[in-house]
Amino acid sequence: MPKSKTKTLHDAFLDELRDVYNAEKQLTKALPRMAKNATDPKLKAAFESHLGETEGHVTILEGVFEKLGEKARGKHCDGIAGIIEEAKSMLEEDYDADTVDASLVAGGQRAEHYEITAYGTLIAWANTMGHGNVARDLQKILAQEEAADKKLTSLAEGGINQKAADAVRAEQVAV
Amino acid sequence: MPKSKTKTLHDAFLDELRDVYNAEKQLTKALPRMAKNATDPKLKAAFESHLGETEGHVTILEGVFEKLGEKARGKHCDGIAGIIEEAKSMLEEDYDADTVDASLVAGGQRAEHYEITAYGTLIAWANTMGHGNVARDLQKILAQEEAADKKLTSLAEGGINQKAADAVRAEQVAV
Repeated sequence: MPKSKTKTLHDAFLDELRDVYNAEKQLTKALPRMAKNATDPKLKAAFESHLGETEGHVTILEGVFEKLGEKARGKHCDGIAGIIEEAKSMLEEDYDADTVDASLVAGGQRAEHYEITAYGTLIAWANTMGHGNVARDLQKILAQEEAADKKLTSLAEGGINQKAADAVRAEQVAV
Repeated sequence: MPKSKTKTLHDAFLDELRDVYNAEKQLTKALPRMAKNATDPKLKAAFESHLGETEGHVTILEGVFEKLGEKARGKHCDGIAGIIEEAKSMLEEDYDADTVDASLVAGGQRAEHYEITAYGTLIAWANTMGHGNVARDLQKILAQEEAADKKLTSLAEGGINQKAADAVRAEQVAV
């Protein structure tokens, strides 16, 4: 019986790549639902625009698999699945529309941060293993995830949080 | 039949607070396992030291609940559960010890980023709703999560990734 070969960082890299590939695919399904449930027109537009970027990330990742001589395939990403599950639960609660918007920003940012960390790891590993071309592709995706996260922060700070908080104050006055 | 009251940002804030309270508790169980499986002594020490901080976060959060006149209770955090599940799956793979270390850093950073986003949201909402005292408590936790994330980056860049990548090169030479 042949001794099982110990797996290396190259295998861990492919495993992480399959994880984000699946995460991006899960997000192509979740983002339309987030856009649909958003009331603020800028927030709705931000989710719709990031959906287009996310579809582009799937294509870039397929190119990365090809460069590494591997077939593009995903592996169920438990991390992003958990984050999407939380957003779904939130939508089942009876929140006012402004609170739903604020919570959609919170959920979207959790997803962005998951991806920012995952791509950060992949880029560091690719560079250390001498895959500079792959690192450059992943860097393009990372830049868009970071921009999407900043966009959500600016929308939250630019009025979404305040509108939701005003409803809390109005309720306190009414009581 | 009384009309069901629409929930506000205050309710969403409590919900998010229960989410991170449960996340911190899940991490107090996961961190000892991560420390146990780390080979690099600095990485092992980083997980052990962050375990102490995490136990402190649980106490700070209990104080926050008290300030808001609420009983401290958690709500299962699917996001961190998914991230911990991924780290567990990784440990079941037959990776070499240096790759396990590099992957433990990756998993630890996913957990840190989840918390960084969650506390970022909570602080922004607390400030908008006029809970400056609560925001300051949460800021203390956030600062430790950010420092823990930076520490993991410095360990990865300071040798852990390189050691794992060297094994890939050695294998390629041997083939």
